[in-house]
Amino acid sequence: MLEPTDIVRYEEGGPKVVLLDQRRLPDEEVELECGTVAELVTAIRELAIRGAPAIGIAAAYGLALAAERGEDLDAAAAALAEARPTAVNLAWALGEMRDDPTPAHARRLHEEEVERCRAMAAHAAELFGPGTRALTHCNAGGLATGGYGSAVGALRAAWERGLLAHVWVDETRPLLQGSRLTAWELEAAGIPHAVIADSAAAALMAGGEVDCVVTGADRIAANGDTANKIGTYSLSVLAAYHRLPLYVIAPTSSVDLATATGAEIPIEERAGAELTSRFPARNPAFDVTPAGLIAAIVTEHGVHRAPYADSLAMLV
Amino acid sequence: MLEPTDIVRYEEGGPKVVLLDQRRLPDEEVELECGTVAELVTAIRELAIRGAPAIGIAAAYGLALAAERGEDLDAAAAALAEARPTAVNLAWALGEMRDDPTPAHARRLHEEEVERCRAMAAHAAELFGPGTRALTHCNAGGLATGGYGSAVGALRAAWERGLLAHVWVDETRPLLQGSRLTAWELEAAGIPHAVIADSAAAALMAGGEVDCVVTGADRIAANGDTANKIGTYSLSVLAAYHRLPLYVIAPTSSVDLATATGAEIPIEERAGAELTSRFPARNPAFDVTPAGLIAAIVTEHGVHRAPYADSLAMLV
Repeated sequence: MLEPTDIVRYEEGGPKVVLLDQRRLPDEEVELECGTVAELVTAIRELAIRGAPAIGIAAAYGLALAAERGEDLDAAAAALAEARPTAVNLAWALGEMRDDPTPAHARRLHEEEVERCRAMAAHAAELFGPGTRALTHCNAGGLATGGYGSAVGALRAAWERGLLAHVWVDETRPLLQGSRLTAWELEAAGIPHAVIADSAAAALMAGGEVDCVVTGADRIAANGDTANKIGTYSLSVLAAYHRLPLYVIAPTSSVDLATATGAEIPIEERAGAELTSRFPARNPAFDVTPAGLIAAIVTEHGVHRAPYADSLAMLV
Repeated sequence: MLEPTDIVRYEEGGPKVVLLDQRRLPDEEVELECGTVAELVTAIRELAIRGAPAIGIAAAYGLALAAERGEDLDAAAAALAEARPTAVNLAWALGEMRDDPTPAHARRLHEEEVERCRAMAAHAAELFGPGTRALTHCNAGGLATGGYGSAVGALRAAWERGLLAHVWVDETRPLLQGSRLTAWELEAAGIPHAVIADSAAAALMAGGEVDCVVTGADRIAANGDTANKIGTYSLSVLAAYHRLPLYVIAPTSSVDLATATGAEIPIEERAGAELTSRFPARNPAFDVTPAGLIAAIVTEHGVHRAPYADSLAMLV
């Protein structure tokens, strides 16, 4: 049985980067071995591993793989950086690895990512009152980070403190990261949960069955605008209408002060075939939630409130 | 090749009610024959035919079937009325059929339903400006009515008048009536369209790519509160936030003056297995859009505006 903590590891000798293949969860718990940077780039692009911090860690191991195999480091870094366009963690991890592209360094970055998640979770738990019924979108879990989770990490911490009553899991079309991955993680953690259609969130809010929305982030601009899985912006508008807080839980490695506002974040458009093989389709993978609809951003350094231009600038 | 107009028919002699099996669209265009009321009830419950006006017509044919077969009419009417709980059209059609449960009468109700759709569509087209990019949810098409459509009928009429530029089709989880049925109808009609994930509607609105939202209705309460496919309420909040109008297109047979407000409308909870076979799920089939978020309700009698308590009372 594999677990969220088995998300990615490096094996010397081969050498290879070994991923828990998230495309096949929850039905099959199998690993995918990447013996070259090209194979790893394909795995990232095709979402065998996904989630902003997780692909950052995978890229760090990828640069170690390139170094050990004697591949050109510039070409490897460029290919890894371009595997997905929206998250900033790829570039961040590759920048960190540049001066010391060793497996030991990648493992240290991985461990630090997990420590950041535990710190974020501890801060985020302070936002939860007793009996909280939280709604989450996509998978900001151990599978999206280093094994513990950002938004799901916050839910783990709240559950351990006896503050969490229930989690509504948006199934998260088209690739169902909620009903496949987040539900799998919550089941393993013993946290009560139920999957819902993405479009049912509003009705549950209107019925008084949701207390807060908790999500991760793929990139946070300097002003607090946050790119995350398509549907997060929708939830932010719905939460505001129902006077519920939306919390973004993400490490500072997802904060990009070089991006002034959400308007500058490139939004990945994925193949329409993820939605339908029969008709035309439009399939943006992310949307941008304006800072004004975010009640708090939680990083490993604490709970940050608006104006985010100030609170985020102090972090980085 | 079957078309939306082949949605349901009655065959004497057998006798039987023949449905276009909507569960198998768009991949297979096949018919389902119901030789007993029990078979028809199962077909309605399992969504071989769905859509409030369409199941009303199917129930009318069902009562004719019961009469021709010598089945107990009270038992047949009760079974048909209980096949789905939210729409009021089942009870309406059965009430209409009671004094004359003949195939000829059912066919007349069917024809009148199509005429009502054409009248609704003509009224609704007045709401469209040139170059409109409309967003629709679920299938309020020919397949949901008698062959022409309520919301999709409005889109057909706007297209014929040269007022419609594009239709965004919510895929409509969990049963994908948008990406399976509405896209199939729009393709057949030659209307430009693209399927989107339900959760992408908000981002398209924010990007200025949507001019209005057009939906059908499963039941309209006396005050204008409208039950429709889960996700319609979500769209109504999102449309209001982006200052876009949401139009409800439905025949007066969907208006239920005996239901004072949306709070009294029973909401069907369907099996969680429609969402996930692996984890707990919550699967309401409908939600209620408050009258205050509806820009206009269009029936065969015209365009009705708030206060709906007055404008709807004059109709029925």
